Amino acid sequence: MNCEIIAIGSEMLTPHRQDTNSLYLTEKLNQLGVSVAFKTIVGDRMQHLVDAARVALSRVDVVLFSGGLGPTEDDLTREAVAEALGIGLHRSSELMQALTVRFAKRSMAMPPNNHRQADVLDGAEIIPNAKGSAAGQLLDTNYAGKRRILVLLPGPPSELKPMFDEQCVPRLRGLLPVSHIAKRVLRMAMVPESTADAMAAPIYSQYPDVETTILAHFGEIQLHFLCAKPSLEEAQERVDEVAGRVADVLEEFVFSEHGEPLEEIVLLRLDMRGLTLAVAESVTGGWLSQRLTSVSGSSRSFLGGAVVYSPRLKTLFADVPPEMIEEHDAVSPQVAEALAQGIRLRTGASIGVGITGVAGPSGGTPELPIGLVYIGVSDAAGTQVTRHTFTGDRDRIRYFSTQQALDLIRRKLI
Amino acid sequence: MNCEIIAIGSEMLTPHRQDTNSLYLTEKLNQLGVSVAFKTIVGDRMQHLVDAARVALSRVDVVLFSGGLGPTEDDLTREAVAEALGIGLHRSSELMQALTVRFAKRSMAMPPNNHRQADVLDGAEIIPNAKGSAAGQLLDTNYAGKRRILVLLPGPPSELKPMFDEQCVPRLRGLLPVSHIAKRVLRMAMVPESTADAMAAPIYSQYPDVETTILAHFGEIQLHFLCAKPSLEEAQERVDEVAGRVADVLEEFVFSEHGEPLEEIVLLRLDMRGLTLAVAESVTGGWLSQRLTSVSGSSRSFLGGAVVYSPRLKTLFADVPPEMIEEHDAVSPQVAEALAQGIRLRTGASIGVGITGVAGPSGGTPELPIGLVYIGVSDAAGTQVTRHTFTGDRDRIRYFSTQQALDLIRRKLI
Repeated sequence: MNCEIIAIGSEMLTPHRQDTNSLYLTEKLNQLGVSVAFKTIVGDRMQHLVDAARVALSRVDVVLFSGGLGPTEDDLTREAVAEALGIGLHRSSELMQALTVRFAKRSMAMPPNNHRQADVLDGAEIIPNAKGSAAGQLLDTNYAGKRRILVLLPGPPSELKPMFDEQCVPRLRGLLPVSHIAKRVLRMAMVPESTADAMAAPIYSQYPDVETTILAHFGEIQLHFLCAKPSLEEAQERVDEVAGRVADVLEEFVFSEHGEPLEEIVLLRLDMRGLTLAVAESVTGGWLSQRLTSVSGSSRSFLGGAVVYSPRLKTLFADVPPEMIEEHDAVSPQVAEALAQGIRLRTGASIGVGITGVAGPSGGTPELPIGLVYIGVSDAAGTQVTRHTFTGDRDRIRYFSTQQALDLIRRKLI
Repeated sequence: MNCEIIAIGSEMLTPHRQDTNSLYLTEKLNQLGVSVAFKTIVGDRMQHLVDAARVALSRVDVVLFSGGLGPTEDDLTREAVAEALGIGLHRSSELMQALTVRFAKRSMAMPPNNHRQADVLDGAEIIPNAKGSAAGQLLDTNYAGKRRILVLLPGPPSELKPMFDEQCVPRLRGLLPVSHIAKRVLRMAMVPESTADAMAAPIYSQYPDVETTILAHFGEIQLHFLCAKPSLEEAQERVDEVAGRVADVLEEFVFSEHGEPLEEIVLLRLDMRGLTLAVAESVTGGWLSQRLTSVSGSSRSFLGGAVVYSPRLKTLFADVPPEMIEEHDAVSPQVAEALAQGIRLRTGASIGVGITGVAGPSGGTPELPIGLVYIGVSDAAGTQVTRHTFTGDRDRIRYFSTQQALDLIRRKLI
């Protein structure tokens, strides 16, 4: 079965706002065995809405509408869908009562505008909204002689997501030919997409019943394995088998076999081994610390560290000798090593990391080009420094430096 | 005139990828006086593409296609548009030669597949691609008796953006009824949207010829003023007038009148006054430093600081007395004050900032609820501590803390 998602709202036709609900809905629809064939974004104009609804009804089995269910004059989805189908709307006493109760609870009188939120397509089922006043609707009907399922959803993600998950998915399961879908995701850091694919393809190509997708994004490769079978056990077995075999081959690169982000894996490994970490960041300016502390509970293993953005702070907080900076430059393997060891000894952490480099866009020289980064990783056994050259803009070079540093710590903890 | 943007590519119908070109194109189209009425996303399937092209041709004046111009079998945009219009394609000798030269330069033989990239819609103008092998096309034609302008653009943003800017905008200016559009943006931090709008509306409502949009996003409010006039001077004068009057009223909140981000404004003000800054971050874990160092040249005024994620590091790097943490808790006005003053004295910076708080999701208590944040700002004249309570998840609480800290520094520098 295929589907069209229609996102409704003039703000999504400006340069400032984008439809994001459709990404969430697509994932849920795929799990129901429904593929998305079209996505349309349309403004709050009656004729455009009717037009978009008719086009969708003519070309797909399932049409999801998000937005346009509020109480204002701009909220036209109910009326537009009724007109596109050539059916009527009726005012639901059940919804009128729910709205009245909702306003009474807030000690407010219901404005007359809100009455429209009780209008329901003839033949449609009302889908309760646990988080707002806009009820959803589901209609299983015919259009030009073909069966069509329509779902009207509120626009705010905080209302749409729970409504779709809790109310619509079970109903759609009852209406659609059911298949069960299992999924596995392998995540890898700092490996080229072509390398990962060359190693993985000979395996996953043996599984024509598993849909494999490679996603490359900001220093990370993800391999998604999806399989639909009459039973979930069967589907799970297939994705587990292919994911397991691919993970064996890509072993050293794979940081997560169940979707956890890299910073979480690093903290988990530190915690499991009772180790602590401190970092001294120059070029990344706090970003590595920011990523580590984005994980709740990170203070168990991450002590903190220093943002040593000036030569003096490299000495003050990580005991880098000023002569060393003078002689070798702040961007040098020597300073990366001294930062890693210095922050470890100063803080008493088990592992110390030091990062120094050139992020640009100004300041590159032939000897110290933009993108050159040294990372030191230090523990009681010694300090290793690696040299990296990243391409791209300032943001990308800095982010890749944090990604590489996390992957170096992860490898040290294997 | 109105427009539809059709983004082509099956990957944009998965949960993992989104069309982003349309945001960029929308801004450029609006500047030409063209509004976007529909956006469609469609996969690499011939019938779906032809269908989407026909729907668009039936309902708008200008249709932009992005993607599907590569050399692979999946790249079907040229053929689909020809079929939708009922016209032919011809192989351009000019493009064949350009492709041959392109491959020769790389010492490669051109694969036969690439010949398709020389196919041009009958009557279309070829738009050169400075960044890749996929040429664009522009066609001014009729469909069902109505004038239609079609533009075919490559999908990669790095090719699409320069092609649209440098090649298409001048051509479209020649084809469309011209108006000149001027724009101004005011940016404000940490003010509720309703407050900003209540203060601004009495002014901007006096300018019916200026389109005013309020955007609220992550602790920032933006007011966009847009005006179209026959001459750019006239349009600029109107937006400058309304922006100036609104800025006067919202004075204390406005951090930028020409679009610069808050971190850049803070660094600019520090630099202008020859002052330096150092920070000691607990709850924000390096995020404030990360934002400051995201600006190129920030090392002129930002010395760095410490990520004091453990009690011991608060003492080690910012000289917070251990007894103070013991007595008042790490999340307290006393510790925020000590962090700000300690990091300032330790680093010799003109201004020191200390941040401590509870980001959750675990760890909140009735006395120290999730979202409670203390920020200290210290200079030679003394140290001020402010108390804040932010709502939302861990990420939001941490980001708002950095935003609030930057705004406090900004206000100190006025």
